[in-house]
Amino acid sequence: MATFPDAAAIAAMDAQDPLRRFRDHFVLNEGEVYLDGNSLGVAPRAAYAELDLAARQEWGGDQIRSWNKAGWFDLPLALGHRIGRLIGAAPGQTIVADTTSINIYKALHAAIGLRPGRTTILAEAGSFPTDLYMAQGVVSTIPGAVLKLEGVDGPSIEQLLDDNVAVVLLNHVNYRTGLLHDMAAMTAKIHAAGALVVWDLCHTAGALEVTLDAARADFAVGCSYKYLNGGPGAPAFIYVAERHLPHARQPLSGWWGHARPFAFETGYEGAEGIRRFQCGTQPILSLRAMKASLDLWDEVDMAELRTKSLALTDLFIQLVEGRCTGLGLTLDTPRTHPLRGSQIALRHENAYAVMQALIERGVIGDFRAPDTLRFGFTPLYIGFADVARAVAVLEDILRTETWKEARFAVRGAVT
Amino acid sequence: MATFPDAAAIAAMDAQDPLRRFRDHFVLNEGEVYLDGNSLGVAPRAAYAELDLAARQEWGGDQIRSWNKAGWFDLPLALGHRIGRLIGAAPGQTIVADTTSINIYKALHAAIGLRPGRTTILAEAGSFPTDLYMAQGVVSTIPGAVLKLEGVDGPSIEQLLDDNVAVVLLNHVNYRTGLLHDMAAMTAKIHAAGALVVWDLCHTAGALEVTLDAARADFAVGCSYKYLNGGPGAPAFIYVAERHLPHARQPLSGWWGHARPFAFETGYEGAEGIRRFQCGTQPILSLRAMKASLDLWDEVDMAELRTKSLALTDLFIQLVEGRCTGLGLTLDTPRTHPLRGSQIALRHENAYAVMQALIERGVIGDFRAPDTLRFGFTPLYIGFADVARAVAVLEDILRTETWKEARFAVRGAVT
Repeated sequence: MATFPDAAAIAAMDAQDPLRRFRDHFVLNEGEVYLDGNSLGVAPRAAYAELDLAARQEWGGDQIRSWNKAGWFDLPLALGHRIGRLIGAAPGQTIVADTTSINIYKALHAAIGLRPGRTTILAEAGSFPTDLYMAQGVVSTIPGAVLKLEGVDGPSIEQLLDDNVAVVLLNHVNYRTGLLHDMAAMTAKIHAAGALVVWDLCHTAGALEVTLDAARADFAVGCSYKYLNGGPGAPAFIYVAERHLPHARQPLSGWWGHARPFAFETGYEGAEGIRRFQCGTQPILSLRAMKASLDLWDEVDMAELRTKSLALTDLFIQLVEGRCTGLGLTLDTPRTHPLRGSQIALRHENAYAVMQALIERGVIGDFRAPDTLRFGFTPLYIGFADVARAVAVLEDILRTETWKEARFAVRGAVT
Repeated sequence: MATFPDAAAIAAMDAQDPLRRFRDHFVLNEGEVYLDGNSLGVAPRAAYAELDLAARQEWGGDQIRSWNKAGWFDLPLALGHRIGRLIGAAPGQTIVADTTSINIYKALHAAIGLRPGRTTILAEAGSFPTDLYMAQGVVSTIPGAVLKLEGVDGPSIEQLLDDNVAVVLLNHVNYRTGLLHDMAAMTAKIHAAGALVVWDLCHTAGALEVTLDAARADFAVGCSYKYLNGGPGAPAFIYVAERHLPHARQPLSGWWGHARPFAFETGYEGAEGIRRFQCGTQPILSLRAMKASLDLWDEVDMAELRTKSLALTDLFIQLVEGRCTGLGLTLDTPRTHPLRGSQIALRHENAYAVMQALIERGVIGDFRAPDTLRFGFTPLYIGFADVARAVAVLEDILRTETWKEARFAVRGAVT
């Protein structure tokens, strides 16, 4: 059996953690280890007061005046700028609006428009499904357009790249396995083939350093309710590289993307810059909760975040391999740091029941069919002792087979 | 000068108002008359507690578990059912999702798909602009499709209806003038020409009785943050008539519209029924605020609402005409009840400055370029004494010309 850190060594890791102070700013349940922040990030404590202010003073008190007085008009751009720093985007290229799905639609349409004569969209068969569904929606609106999938139509993106490919839609981190793409290298290969790339950052924004500008990315989309703690269903973001902004067009051309939204003109004329990727009025209360979270994120050093994220997942792998050998688990996430996001997937033939047992014991992860136990490690509020506790509970469940008694529950229900 | 009700008569109107009890359930500022509920409805008092519950217990406490435990999954459909009652829609045809703009895109695409071979969209040049911009976006994705406008390409919708028209997009109430269409009659004319109709209910949902099913409407969209008091930027709704649901398709085919969203399949297969008109994850906190409002709306008799709405706008017209004769105002809203929504437009050559002066004096309406003063009458929380007070202030401003001293402010700012 491999050696692994003892309790004292783990306590020392927490004591030396430069991000440790952030933990107190989040709401965590006593006695639980929340490893599902890659699905829904926990609440920043400040979000409650921010929401209360937005509801009572802004909506209730100032009413319509808050569009100016409280800065509601500028929230999508202001929040987008702040997310931009976290994903390596200079200001003016990122805006908060709509959902990830809808932003994929905008980005794919814009990319295809920038590559006239090319009609293929490439994506990974293992993408988060909505990416593929939205690509299918885009294809349905463009005569001759086709969607080709890595793993179905060919073994790899590289081998599918030909001079008919307009755009490649890639998940920066795979939602299931945690596999991380080399953004700069993949972007360069795609550009060499004359195509553009749309990066889906749902599992990387707030999880690790992203360098969109430096990697010469074309478009990116992502959600704010996972690692970024924006709140349940908080609006998503979209990034368009500055060099594309003068020419990029998208068909969800609502009044918020108009050059002069309050001139009430009959004809659409897109605003300059990233504002053109807005469409309609955004849910202000949800945006205000997100603001509370970004107030914290403004202070985060993304290199420190990545260092801690890798240390957390390293420790988890080390402890699982040290303590759970022979208990039916298979690691489905790369060991190599440059290939790993901030989550770990373990496969087990009874993954569903094991996850139910874990949740009953206060270790909150999630299950992905057919056989994946998925654990997200959010460096701002998960510590090294949490990792050790999660593995201890997992080991106990597997050794004593208490997962066999876990209550049956439907569709990930955790009643 | 015409005679008009005195203070005692107006007090009697309030005393006899069967909807009077609702007023106490909303947050109103002492000393103000809020006639901008057609732009942003005021906050229901219960929304604060609902938001607090959603933030602290559901997001903060139960975290990911709230998708099941708090019913987050079903909120779009549950809220849609409740809005459905207010717009004359039997259950299963209305869902809350995204923005009005995006729902217009879905509805127009679906309608065109149901009328193969037809490529014209008709709309009114006087539509709320985003309707036209979204129609232009739809046209940009369909080869050969054209948008024709009443008032630009022809004098009336009826005269533009030909056998190439696939769909007509109509504003049930005009956002500027308050002109109300006869939904059943217009729908019948459009159907007689073989086309479908999309009704934009932004200025009618919660403002008056709407009878979508009875009028044989095909599609409808609308917002929840005006008369419905859903909160700033609260998500919109979309209605699809049951007879179209088996065949209607829309290209924003995200995972929330999938038949089995948690099976994580590669290919899109639309859910049965109205769920197919969903796309991505909705902003839960904003939906929860909307729930607080719909708890009140569930108790509202829509016939009573319409009766009061007309009485309020009748009184406003009567008082303005009685007290402000010769002061430069022109009524821009129909006097005839069946042609009037729940708002009144007055034109004045210095409308912008007059509105600023009104707002400074606590009468909150809004300005629409170039010369419109717009006043919304929301029957759940505006009373007859409010109407009298608003007209008294308007008269005073016009007679003493204090609007000439109104502070300059940009774009409707009311600092």
